[in-house]
Amino acid sequence: MWVEYPDIEALAKKIGAPATGKKSDGSPSYTLPIINDPNTGKVVSDSFLIAEYLDATYPSGNTLFPPGTKPLIEAFEAGVVGGIGAILPLQLALSCAILNPSSEKYFRTTREASFGKKIEEFSPAGAQRDADWAKGKEGLAKVDGWLAKSGGGKFVMGDTISYADGILGGWMTWIKITNEGTTAGQDFATWHGGRWSTYLANLRPFAAVL
Amino acid sequence: MWVEYPDIEALAKKIGAPATGKKSDGSPSYTLPIINDPNTGKVVSDSFLIAEYLDATYPSGNTLFPPGTKPLIEAFEAGVVGGIGAILPLQLALSCAILNPSSEKYFRTTREASFGKKIEEFSPAGAQRDADWAKGKEGLAKVDGWLAKSGGGKFVMGDTISYADGILGGWMTWIKITNEGTTAGQDFATWHGGRWSTYLANLRPFAAVL
Repeated sequence: MWVEYPDIEALAKKIGAPATGKKSDGSPSYTLPIINDPNTGKVVSDSFLIAEYLDATYPSGNTLFPPGTKPLIEAFEAGVVGGIGAILPLQLALSCAILNPSSEKYFRTTREASFGKKIEEFSPAGAQRDADWAKGKEGLAKVDGWLAKSGGGKFVMGDTISYADGILGGWMTWIKITNEGTTAGQDFATWHGGRWSTYLANLRPFAAVL
Repeated sequence: MWVEYPDIEALAKKIGAPATGKKSDGSPSYTLPIINDPNTGKVVSDSFLIAEYLDATYPSGNTLFPPGTKPLIEAFEAGVVGGIGAILPLQLALSCAILNPSSEKYFRTTREASFGKKIEEFSPAGAQRDADWAKGKEGLAKVDGWLAKSGGGKFVMGDTISYADGILGGWMTWIKITNEGTTAGQDFATWHGGRWSTYLANLRPFAAVL
């Protein structure tokens, strides 16, 4: 179900989805994704908790968290977010520009408040954006180095798909779609030997909503 | 075999241990640990490569890298090092003070050149050191949060000991022994519910050289 930004909080409260954090004023904040499992009636928010819920509720041969990997996958998430940190403001600006009007207004207001400047000043085209982009590539080179240790395979953990792919696939998809059709997007497709394009292609079978 | 800092390079070259990095002038640099396996004659340097070598050469039920975990463990290492980053200068200064004379001179010269100041200025006792120490604790809180996701168990990966414990155990042991008998050391033992003390006690059976 598609939910615009300003409607997330009311919906979460209505269906009983727990808050996932706090706003700067200390009040609870609500984020997507949220699932409402029709089989059990359970409502779960927060990607990590949703993945844990799905593993526990629908056990299969393919657990999202192979034994003992939760702390490591948390570290991996922090590393990916830290690595691309320099382009997050740019990504927010690009995202803001493609939202529907009600979300655009909400997103702009909240992000401008949090950064203390206009969205247009987050990563203005030119020297600033070029520098951010270069730093993002450099940060992602670290992640590329980690993946090079895998000894092959399509996914973070080699031949086993895991929650780590939910993280990396999510961030890489965000960069890809917000830069689609631009020279930056073409550049991104070549980063680190084309690793991210190939990786997203490998994840495509798992990205479809059935 | 105990090797003083200024003797590492000559020894490494003598036994054919590969360089592990480059000095600032571009020439190869040599670091410990190095193993010289009497069973195979193989010489391996770099902790990660040594662990890979041991897993490959002496397969057992207890691999140091459970399948698919190498990229995740690399990310974990980066997270641990980043987390305690604020106390690294302090740790270097404390370490310098307890080295044997030949190593002390080498260590001081190289670290002072790399930081551009005297060892005594790395983290002087008082406001600077207190601030560094507090930041180190804050950084390690992130790692504590990751470990809290493990769902129990003595090690990073729960009940399975892995190379991740080599990393975390190494760094935590370094902090512990360099601060032994001081109020900082007592403080460290209480950090994050005593997690690091308990963790090091759990690792003790693996720390003995047989």
